[in-house]
Amino acid sequence: MSANLSKPGTRRRLRYAMVGGGRDAFIGAIHRHAIALDGQAELVAGALSSSPDKARASGRDLYLADDRNHGDWQALLADELRRPAHERIDFVVIVTPNHVHFPVAQAFVEAGFHVVCDKPLVHTSEQAEALVAAVARQGTVFGVTYNYSGYPMVRQARAMVRAGELGVLRKVVVEYNQGWLATPIESGGNKQAGWRTDPSRSGAAGALGDIGSHAENLLATVTGLGIDSLCADLGALVPGRALDDDGSVLLRLSGGVRGVLVASQINTGLENDLRLRVSGTLGTLEWCQEQPSQLVHFPLQGPRQVLTRGSPGLHGAAGRASRLPAGHPEGFIEAFANLYGGVMTDIRARLEGRRADPAEADYPRVEDGARGVRFIERTLASSASAAKWTAW
Amino acid sequence: MSANLSKPGTRRRLRYAMVGGGRDAFIGAIHRHAIALDGQAELVAGALSSSPDKARASGRDLYLADDRNHGDWQALLADELRRPAHERIDFVVIVTPNHVHFPVAQAFVEAGFHVVCDKPLVHTSEQAEALVAAVARQGTVFGVTYNYSGYPMVRQARAMVRAGELGVLRKVVVEYNQGWLATPIESGGNKQAGWRTDPSRSGAAGALGDIGSHAENLLATVTGLGIDSLCADLGALVPGRALDDDGSVLLRLSGGVRGVLVASQINTGLENDLRLRVSGTLGTLEWCQEQPSQLVHFPLQGPRQVLTRGSPGLHGAAGRASRLPAGHPEGFIEAFANLYGGVMTDIRARLEGRRADPAEADYPRVEDGARGVRFIERTLASSASAAKWTAW
Amino acid sequence: MSANLSKPGTRRRLRYAMVGGGRDAFIGAIHRHAIALDGQAELVAGALSSSPDKARASGRDLYLADDRNHGDWQALLADELRRPAHERIDFVVIVTPNHVHFPVAQAFVEAGFHVVCDKPLVHTSEQAEALVAAVARQGTVFGVTYNYSGYPMVRQARAMVRAGELGVLRKVVVEYNQGWLATPIESGGNKQAGWRTDPSRSGAAGALGDIGSHAENLLATVTGLGIDSLCADLGALVPGRALDDDGSVLLRLSGGVRGVLVASQINTGLENDLRLRVSGTLGTLEWCQEQPSQLVHFPLQGPRQVLTRGSPGLHGAAGRASRLPAGHPEGFIEAFANLYGGVMTDIRARLEGRRADPAEADYPRVEDGARGVRFIERTLASSASAAKWTAW
Amino acid sequence: MSANLSKPGTRRRLRYAMVGGGRDAFIGAIHRHAIALDGQAELVAGALSSSPDKARASGRDLYLADDRNHGDWQALLADELRRPAHERIDFVVIVTPNHVHFPVAQAFVEAGFHVVCDKPLVHTSEQAEALVAAVARQGTVFGVTYNYSGYPMVRQARAMVRAGELGVLRKVVVEYNQGWLATPIESGGNKQAGWRTDPSRSGAAGALGDIGSHAENLLATVTGLGIDSLCADLGALVPGRALDDDGSVLLRLSGGVRGVLVASQINTGLENDLRLRVSGTLGTLEWCQEQPSQLVHFPLQGPRQVLTRGSPGLHGAAGRASRLPAGHPEGFIEAFANLYGGVMTDIRARLEGRRADPAEADYPRVEDGARGVRFIERTLASSASAAKWTAW
Repeated sequence: MSANLSKPGTRRRLRYAMVGGGRDAFIGAIHRHAIALDGQAELVAGALSSSPDKARASGRDLYLADDRNHGDWQALLADELRRPAHERIDFVVIVTPNHVHFPVAQAFVEAGFHVVCDKPLVHTSEQAEALVAAVARQGTVFGVTYNYSGYPMVRQARAMVRAGELGVLRKVVVEYNQGWLATPIESGGNKQAGWRTDPSRSGAAGALGDIGSHAENLLATVTGLGIDSLCADLGALVPGRALDDDGSVLLRLSGGVRGVLVASQINTGLENDLRLRVSGTLGTLEWCQEQPSQLVHFPLQGPRQVLTRGSPGLHGAAGRASRLPAGHPEGFIEAFANLYGGVMTDIRARLEGRRADPAEADYPRVEDGARGVRFIERTLASSASAAKWTAW
Repeated sequence: MSANLSKPGTRRRLRYAMVGGGRDAFIGAIHRHAIALDGQAELVAGALSSSPDKARASGRDLYLADDRNHGDWQALLADELRRPAHERIDFVVIVTPNHVHFPVAQAFVEAGFHVVCDKPLVHTSEQAEALVAAVARQGTVFGVTYNYSGYPMVRQARAMVRAGELGVLRKVVVEYNQGWLATPIESGGNKQAGWRTDPSRSGAAGALGDIGSHAENLLATVTGLGIDSLCADLGALVPGRALDDDGSVLLRLSGGVRGVLVASQINTGLENDLRLRVSGTLGTLEWCQEQPSQLVHFPLQGPRQVLTRGSPGLHGAAGRASRLPAGHPEGFIEAFANLYGGVMTDIRARLEGRRADPAEADYPRVEDGARGVRFIERTLASSASAAKWTAW
Repeated sequence: MSANLSKPGTRRRLRYAMVGGGRDAFIGAIHRHAIALDGQAELVAGALSSSPDKARASGRDLYLADDRNHGDWQALLADELRRPAHERIDFVVIVTPNHVHFPVAQAFVEAGFHVVCDKPLVHTSEQAEALVAAVARQGTVFGVTYNYSGYPMVRQARAMVRAGELGVLRKVVVEYNQGWLATPIESGGNKQAGWRTDPSRSGAAGALGDIGSHAENLLATVTGLGIDSLCADLGALVPGRALDDDGSVLLRLSGGVRGVLVASQINTGLENDLRLRVSGTLGTLEWCQEQPSQLVHFPLQGPRQVLTRGSPGLHGAAGRASRLPAGHPEGFIEAFANLYGGVMTDIRARLEGRRADPAEADYPRVEDGARGVRFIERTLASSASAAKWTAW
Repeated sequence: MSANLSKPGTRRRLRYAMVGGGRDAFIGAIHRHAIALDGQAELVAGALSSSPDKARASGRDLYLADDRNHGDWQALLADELRRPAHERIDFVVIVTPNHVHFPVAQAFVEAGFHVVCDKPLVHTSEQAEALVAAVARQGTVFGVTYNYSGYPMVRQARAMVRAGELGVLRKVVVEYNQGWLATPIESGGNKQAGWRTDPSRSGAAGALGDIGSHAENLLATVTGLGIDSLCADLGALVPGRALDDDGSVLLRLSGGVRGVLVASQINTGLENDLRLRVSGTLGTLEWCQEQPSQLVHFPLQGPRQVLTRGSPGLHGAAGRASRLPAGHPEGFIEAFANLYGGVMTDIRARLEGRRADPAEADYPRVEDGARGVRFIERTLASSASAAKWTAW
């Protein structure tokens, strides 16, 4: 490692640590692939599991040096605080089960570290507000990995809406349908299903928290609209399940826009069918995560157009999120990497004592995470209510 | 015309009259194409418009003999009752604006004629029940042209559900999205838009009655489930419009099945995007009207399958509704013709003094029409209610 | 039947006879559906099979009067010549096996009848030229049912090419792939497979004649280009088969345009995968028969556009070939009916003593049929040659 | 860097150098993304451009240490040979323009380094054979980045063919259509177009070498068939171009299988439309690069199946090439990374003194590269010949 890397503000790879994400954890590996892809950061430390032995074994798999491969996150934090600046991590990635997000995130923020945290951010709006306040106080970077917002054509959709190309919005339908929880696989030992269907680890929401929150974020990202009130019908349709595995929600969005949000994990055979339709006075957009390179635009006049990632004429936000020419598919990891690209742009700006261009530092922030927590709370409240509309 | 055609029960082309459907009427022509397609009936009489002059001009376009080309439906009915059996029509097709359905249908049923009536059947459940009672009393055939139920792959879906191939149903999402009413074209003189957005001609429902009722029928046809309660949010999103042009409805179906129904005519640029997803414990089905020859089956185990119209291995109900080998598209008119095929099968059976095989006499009946009217009423009631659930 | 129908030139349904197309014949029924669809002609006479008994039984199925239901085509022709003008057929439809096309067509043309004949027209260019000459001499209408040219979006493609919207053409790829002859079903008694794989009934070409000729016609229709020379590789890939079931052909088209034509009936599992790609200096078009309502346009600049049947802004030739609004699928029979619409427009013009507008009388003519025969001959010659290029 | 990394055979990140691929080079960045993705190797040295200044500037962008950031490949090679084993690169990646592949590859192989080289491998079969011989002599790993073979569903297709699931193969159609060279952008200064259309840098073939060679490799990878003879028609369709920009080739493959290969860069508006259809006695497969996660299987019996990346039931070779659950798209870079995964598995095995499991060390080798060179030569020969068939 050459000397100049110790001076903040100069170009070097950033250093990061990971909490959670050890052996058998699905999402931790995705974060690492996403960070590695563009060669702008390297994993140098970790506390990769709540089990110290598993944590260390996982760190060895990832070539961590022994003295930065910790058995718990408290040890990681203490060690980082001890290290000189030229060794210390630039940010920490939190990919633990949901119920552990809050204490870890709070501690690292309070210690002045930049943080990337998986979603849903935390379990309660109180926690979320505490985190928002802490981030504001510390002035740190805090990203929440609503990863679908990193797809170039989602950013194209957002840019088209912002530029008025759809006119005044009227109707939004967003669905996230999966099938993998159509049978009670949690009772068969499936680890992913286990924590997601367990209220003590997943929080009060099941499918709604796991994928409904992605749908909410996608809707909010593209339309920029807030939810005024909602009307939810959540259900645990697989017998014996404690948390919802299916939900449908009517939405009244700001400005009187109507919406529907569906999130279900019991649509047997479906994979990750996240899809969005946004209609305005001048056009409609349709996007589907399983074919992420296409954004179908139905203008008020003229034939539908299939906009493709990487093609000329897209908005800058879509172009910047693209590595390959059109027709060479980019996927989930690339979209994820785009969030990290935004986070790292912001961190580098701080290291260099300047403010990042917000168009470049493009990632969901702690406030987005807090809004997602609020969404879950209000949806649960609505589902339990006999009134049609529950205010935000 | 050869003599044997006068003997009921022998094979001949059936004779029909049409009420409404004259020049400039879209749907009347579709009915005539659909009836003509299979060469089993011929138009011999009509009262093709509420304007006598236009009625007669329209009849001449269609090669009607002058003495069977009437200026109003009362004259048509009186004339038919006077004619000998070997000339008299076998059935009447009612394709007037919605508000005229009831008196015409009632009069022809009471006179003992078989009837095919466009949807929505009538404006009120009282009218619908009166018609159901009259049909029961007269023992006549009464078809309602919920035409999408005639698509072979819709019948395949229905057969798969009935055969238990999806297991126990859990979730149904049906949408019918159009864009043609995204602008107030009714104020520019568009005839189709004019009557559909006018409460005096269209009834109390707009998009819900026009296309939401098709969505309800598709859901009911495929799943066989009734609606226990519903929660609707209807809106007139184009300023100045008196009737809803957009609606979203949460459904609780029999057996605890959850559902969502969306009907919107303001999805700029969309054409006739009617689509259905049905999930059960053993699989999911997806069908989309704009690609009607495909039914996508996602079984619990194994890869998704694309079932195609005309291919081997389909259920009989799908095979019977098919004229061409797989890969040669059949469309909207063919589906429409399949309803008429069912109606005519039933009429022929009556002419021959026997009961038709219900698998062959496959068409939506007056009871389906009545249920559709009830659906509209209950949805309007729900939309006006502050309670979450409105019982059926 | 009212008196005015006996005066040529007044509006009435046309009368037609059919030769071939009896019970079990696939294509005859399609022709009848297609003719019936628009209600402009009725079947009044026939010689529906080469077997007199089967011919008459088939005629009774179709409600033919006994005295116009003939055991052979010679009797049909003689009878028609004897009848008064107000009873006589306006045209005859020839849907026999290929080897019978020539004598029947020749006899009816020589007798002054208008003819519609299935493709491939005849077996040899000599026969074809004789027919062309006879038609020219008689001044009769002669349509050849290259039915795929009747799809609205094929006509849109043709219009776009003619209007220069693709610029100067450079490359054309057309494929027609089926799978139904992937096994030797002809030895199991399949009637359709039987005659198509039998040189005595099908001619010297198998797949090439059956579906390659459709591909050639589609290419010629859309591009308007002739073939200068070709290089073919035909094969009988299913052991024991006498005629080709697979072929691939390199083409040099007029103006130096390059082409590829593939026709195969051994692509296991494929249905009727006829597809065309045409590229010019200003854009590319793609069309696929199994989704016939879409024409994908890739312009030189800007995103690809999905043009849909029935939508505004299409060329007149596409609009005229359309019955339904966009999003309501029309299919194979409707396309077929569009050819008959063109033929009948031409016949009506003759009856009224005027020339039809060629834009309305839009159908493949005897010259197109002759070119198709030539294509088969030259392709067979090329396949047998060791030289790369065989001139047209 | 911990000490154990100096011991060959222990687990550590591999070290690599890159030749070519500096600023503005498209493909070099792709290789780096692909290598980085899985975190198994790091770039430690380079000679990133033929211009020394640009080479060094490019190296600084990539955080290369100054003493390993070379102005030419000869200096890189000399430096590596001087370094101790624990610093020395494990492999070199050659991503120069085509005409430089041979000397660089030859030099590194002769020096005992493992090599990954872009395609087409070299310009002549003589060079290719020299390289094959050198690799055999040195016993080194040599990968050629026919990257499309790394897609999981391509490997699934290959596995299905090898397992006999398609039966005996009969017909293969492979196309690679692009549009970016539809206008003479090389005269406007486009760098990518510049070298690809320049015989001195690209070799004697244009589109054929650039993308036709990918099509050949895809065909060979999936089917395992060799080419017995071929019949090509290449053209430079954009006026003024020296090299082919369009080509179509008839193929006779081993065992009498028929084939067609099309490669064109003048299909205006198309992006990277690489597609393959393989038919055998038991089924057909279709794959398209722009939707790489799907493989459509048309079995002889039963409906078509859409196999998806990441889903259960795929062959091991497809499963091993997959990082994400089904429905979360992986794309071009992931496929590319799969080749590198195979190469690195092979290199690690050598470091540990054992033979890699060939199922794991899954990548195109120098022999595949040599066959690709031969393919180009024989296609050029055929295109220049008046004989139909040119033997391999």
